[in-house]
Amino acid sequence: MSSAATNMRLKLPVTCLVLQIILIILFGTLVQYNHDTDAKLWHKGNQSDYENDFYYRYPSFQDVHVMIFIGFGFLMTFLQRYGFSSVGFNFLIAAFSLQWATLMQGFFHGMHEGKIHIGVESMINADFCTGAVLISFGAVLGKTSPVQLLVMAMFEVTLFAINEYIILSLLGAKDAGGSMTIHTFGAYFGLVVTRVLYRPNLDKSKHRNSSVYHSDMFAMIGTLYLWMFWPSFNSAVTAHGDDQHRTAMNTYYSLASCTLATYAMSALTAHDGKLDMVHIQNAALAGGVAVGTAGEMMLTPVGSMIVGFLAGIVSVLGFKYLSPILEKKLKIQDTCGVHNLHGMPGVLGAIVGAVTSALATREIYGNGMADVFPDVASGKVGTSLQAGHQALSLLVTLGMALFGGIIVGFILKLPIYGAPPDTICYEDNLYWEVPGDEEDHHDHQLATVRADEIEKLNN
Amino acid sequence: MSSAATNMRLKLPVTCLVLQIILIILFGTLVQYNHDTDAKLWHKGNQSDYENDFYYRYPSFQDVHVMIFIGFGFLMTFLQRYGFSSVGFNFLIAAFSLQWATLMQGFFHGMHEGKIHIGVESMINADFCTGAVLISFGAVLGKTSPVQLLVMAMFEVTLFAINEYIILSLLGAKDAGGSMTIHTFGAYFGLVVTRVLYRPNLDKSKHRNSSVYHSDMFAMIGTLYLWMFWPSFNSAVTAHGDDQHRTAMNTYYSLASCTLATYAMSALTAHDGKLDMVHIQNAALAGGVAVGTAGEMMLTPVGSMIVGFLAGIVSVLGFKYLSPILEKKLKIQDTCGVHNLHGMPGVLGAIVGAVTSALATREIYGNGMADVFPDVASGKVGTSLQAGHQALSLLVTLGMALFGGIIVGFILKLPIYGAPPDTICYEDNLYWEVPGDEEDHHDHQLATVRADEIEKLNN
Amino acid sequence: MSSAATNMRLKLPVTCLVLQIILIILFGTLVQYNHDTDAKLWHKGNQSDYENDFYYRYPSFQDVHVMIFIGFGFLMTFLQRYGFSSVGFNFLIAAFSLQWATLMQGFFHGMHEGKIHIGVESMINADFCTGAVLISFGAVLGKTSPVQLLVMAMFEVTLFAINEYIILSLLGAKDAGGSMTIHTFGAYFGLVVTRVLYRPNLDKSKHRNSSVYHSDMFAMIGTLYLWMFWPSFNSAVTAHGDDQHRTAMNTYYSLASCTLATYAMSALTAHDGKLDMVHIQNAALAGGVAVGTAGEMMLTPVGSMIVGFLAGIVSVLGFKYLSPILEKKLKIQDTCGVHNLHGMPGVLGAIVGAVTSALATREIYGNGMADVFPDVASGKVGTSLQAGHQALSLLVTLGMALFGGIIVGFILKLPIYGAPPDTICYEDNLYWEVPGDEEDHHDHQLATVRADEIEKLNN
Repeated sequence: MSSAATNMRLKLPVTCLVLQIILIILFGTLVQYNHDTDAKLWHKGNQSDYENDFYYRYPSFQDVHVMIFIGFGFLMTFLQRYGFSSVGFNFLIAAFSLQWATLMQGFFHGMHEGKIHIGVESMINADFCTGAVLISFGAVLGKTSPVQLLVMAMFEVTLFAINEYIILSLLGAKDAGGSMTIHTFGAYFGLVVTRVLYRPNLDKSKHRNSSVYHSDMFAMIGTLYLWMFWPSFNSAVTAHGDDQHRTAMNTYYSLASCTLATYAMSALTAHDGKLDMVHIQNAALAGGVAVGTAGEMMLTPVGSMIVGFLAGIVSVLGFKYLSPILEKKLKIQDTCGVHNLHGMPGVLGAIVGAVTSALATREIYGNGMADVFPDVASGKVGTSLQAGHQALSLLVTLGMALFGGIIVGFILKLPIYGAPPDTICYEDNLYWEVPGDEEDHHDHQLATVRADEIEKLNN
Repeated sequence: MSSAATNMRLKLPVTCLVLQIILIILFGTLVQYNHDTDAKLWHKGNQSDYENDFYYRYPSFQDVHVMIFIGFGFLMTFLQRYGFSSVGFNFLIAAFSLQWATLMQGFFHGMHEGKIHIGVESMINADFCTGAVLISFGAVLGKTSPVQLLVMAMFEVTLFAINEYIILSLLGAKDAGGSMTIHTFGAYFGLVVTRVLYRPNLDKSKHRNSSVYHSDMFAMIGTLYLWMFWPSFNSAVTAHGDDQHRTAMNTYYSLASCTLATYAMSALTAHDGKLDMVHIQNAALAGGVAVGTAGEMMLTPVGSMIVGFLAGIVSVLGFKYLSPILEKKLKIQDTCGVHNLHGMPGVLGAIVGAVTSALATREIYGNGMADVFPDVASGKVGTSLQAGHQALSLLVTLGMALFGGIIVGFILKLPIYGAPPDTICYEDNLYWEVPGDEEDHHDHQLATVRADEIEKLNN
Repeated sequence: MSSAATNMRLKLPVTCLVLQIILIILFGTLVQYNHDTDAKLWHKGNQSDYENDFYYRYPSFQDVHVMIFIGFGFLMTFLQRYGFSSVGFNFLIAAFSLQWATLMQGFFHGMHEGKIHIGVESMINADFCTGAVLISFGAVLGKTSPVQLLVMAMFEVTLFAINEYIILSLLGAKDAGGSMTIHTFGAYFGLVVTRVLYRPNLDKSKHRNSSVYHSDMFAMIGTLYLWMFWPSFNSAVTAHGDDQHRTAMNTYYSLASCTLATYAMSALTAHDGKLDMVHIQNAALAGGVAVGTAGEMMLTPVGSMIVGFLAGIVSVLGFKYLSPILEKKLKIQDTCGVHNLHGMPGVLGAIVGAVTSALATREIYGNGMADVFPDVASGKVGTSLQAGHQALSLLVTLGMALFGGIIVGFILKLPIYGAPPDTICYEDNLYWEVPGDEEDHHDHQLATVRADEIEKLNN
């Protein structure tokens, strides 16, 4: 039985230290500054310092970074006794994943003469890959040990990089904001993992699988940072110029429209017309997911608003009606409802991307075609083939997520990671030193008494 | 009596869906990408992608965006039982207002051949207009239904756009940071609305109209984000180059100076020398409001500091002495004290702007005159006429706010929006599914017991 | 005894107003817009508005600004009854320090024809100097009055500027991210001050010197903002181009590596394998401190990761084993453990900087040498002399901190500032109007009852 023990005294340190040392060795062997970060290479050229890519990507990077650590981290703090773990494990697995992703993405599409060259764009891509892992974390939240999560991250990052390579490099699909690579992949991978890890007796922890007033307030910090910075997320790695500008704006309108749809559907589906924080915290973000592929295209502002509107409706309906069915019939215990926020809106986004590709014409894009659809501009493919590649990419992504999720799920099922027992899920106390909830009330009275004494002193 | 029912089951969905569908139709008919966001138009030119306005406005936009959703949203969470509504209704009406503002501001000063052209600058302006609505929200906080707020937003955005058109386009006034257009307008509009909606029996909800320890901590998140990003707010739409740079810096020093004045006045006016969180949360921001007009002018750092200093003093005195009088004598129930944070400092800012305009000389501005005072540079007006236009703009703004506020107040008084009864104001429970405050303590003991068991397993 | 009274009714207002008026007078006499913020000067040149330094420094400035006000402020909210003071005094002394720092740093390295010229770079430097004061604040947290803190800030900013002048201008050392000037100086200055202010009976307030569940969640907001924006901090004032880019990236990897080391060490050193929030909140940041000097150099990504790894280990060990010894043996009562987060990692960073300087070659830096080591590039010094200057700078910094800390400590020991008595340390109640912790439960029941009534009305 000791193999299932939740004590992390040795398991967690060994896992962290081994992983970090492997990372250090591989970075030492393989990773180099790229042209824009290397003192010698940069100064060989004749360009102005102001042309360094830092100035055109770094503000977006920082916004994405906030989404990863504050956005995802706090979004998951809604559980009443799982705030330390939500923010803290999010922090840990993100810090690991971004390093591992630098290597994996570098292997597949960043090698130059045997070396991986890195700069702000690779940092954004590493954060993006981390986002997929954090989405999967949402599906298994409260039911996994930190060691299990690190192992999941290691495999998921690897599969993410392979999938990304297939659909972006081999198929030539466009997916700047990651409707497919990040959201669809992360969600379905996580859903399959949580299915494999199905816990028939999870209702023994049911009383902790809900929010309290203050935990919902903390979660809104996560929601709002994701919402506000999503325009930066979707535009962070598109081509410079009109492309970044347009992508950010499309996302802005999609999200605004999605928010009104979310409030409408939340009140409409509640049993007494009251708004449900779960919907507001999550479904209002679906508009960002759903324009993750088409956002850089000439989707038009109104097109973005329609996509966001649909995403909000689908997402609330998913929380209300589909999630309970998935749990009862398919045994998918999806703690954060990632299927509703990332899964379905991600698939919607992929479809919108395919359709928008099919509708692209030189009349609409002019010379901007080369930035948005380079293969179309170069004559390599027509728009309908491009659209076909987009649709095929969705299928590849779903296949990779399902197949990978099953394998990784079974690896995570091994009783060696210190996963929590069914009776103590959603509970910080297992892995953290948890202080009390309230300051000492006795002391409080004392303080008041003493303050009275002090007042006497003062007078 | 059913017309006054607070159940939102149908009212809120219908309002949201109708508004969003109208927005979609109007965007489809009227709105287009502008030169910098359109693939074809941008690539017609010969400019470098790095010259796209995205790179020179978007970081400011994101800061403004954070102020709107986190800043205003969390600033209003100070009430003990109104956190969901403060953040949540702020989110809803902001998501609506920014879309509606795109149209209204477009009608009045963005039409090109019958179409509204949009990009990052119109996004900032839409967020600005939203700011005015959120200021008015502060005045009526806790006493209004979400449907009422959406209706208020619809009218207020429209009037905002008209007022902005009159003073900026017709009168040629300068008001980059919106001392007049945003703060004065938003505050006095909201104050008149709350006056019309006067509730004689509001003291029945008095026990909820105050903070608790944690709600004040959440509110400080809002305060600090507003304070930190105010330099970006005031400089977001000024001319490029020295103008943006100077405006940000003037605001920085004004706010710092204001903060010291606020702490001084708070301790000085308290009955026992203790600081009052209400002052710190609000008055420390008055320095940003008060340089909203003159910030882009050659106000000098010391000038900015003096303005901030005065704004902080005026604001604390307002909270301490004026607000109670306004409530008792004029029946203005101003929940957040927007008169002290936005009203008086906004008027102060307008006056400072007029005076600074009057003192402008070519000796001081050189060729920079054309950016700050184009009408003076072109010889269309002299500096004293410019100053006159600035002063006139304040009067126009006050007139629009008072007149508009009365009309809209009476529209909002109709008993059809599900406003809360006097006995249940400042209460989330009416419109939200509210979870309990504390996790199950019984469970807590259980968890501890189980953790002991687990410990045994581990050994 | 009245001299020790904690009542701030007059002390705080007088201090704030006198300081602010002095600032206003000195700004009026000495401070001017610099070339990039002055309307006339900027427009004399022929440069494009897009070349204004605003666009290449301001996004970094805003990130630093968030670290100062949200990062430091919330990091210190971990105490159960000191949230108002942590955030609020942080706010006050930062608002003062940034103004005072503008003058002090201007005196020592910003004078042009008798005037201090200011712009975004001086704003960043002022925020940096403020950071050192806030680190010292962390050492004395909970045991000092706001007047005492303002007096400390006034002296510390002055000494900071002198030290900075000696090591950067006279010795030609490099320290862009302030391992020495900010972290080492701020930490050891604060440690000496808290030593001089030693309170033998502080255990009477021991029950308040700990966290509660929600206060630890608030502190994580501070931690994460510091962690996310540290790349901007270290790169904010380096040379443009590859230097800023490289510095940000080195910091990113150092922090990620440090985080894994922190989690490993926290679980390893805990008595039952549980993670300790104190370590996560603090030690995970040590990687940012430790690359504050060498971050702009060609440290390589793997070098950064190794430095971060060591910093995390050293920091956790410091919290676990060294802090109790410092308190018992050396009577250093370090509330936030700044020795572990800023002190030792700062010294480590200085050493890493010296070593990396010694290893610099033209082969590695190419023409970039002039940006990173201008004195080496110009032939003024060799790399080993540069390294010697780096090492000497650490000694100068330690000397200034120790010497200055003693003097200022004794000044702060005067019984005139209203410091809290030993029995009421770590308590907001002394200096703030503190509301209750919980909403009225009685009212809660009422609200529920009334909601039932309303439900009847609705049907």
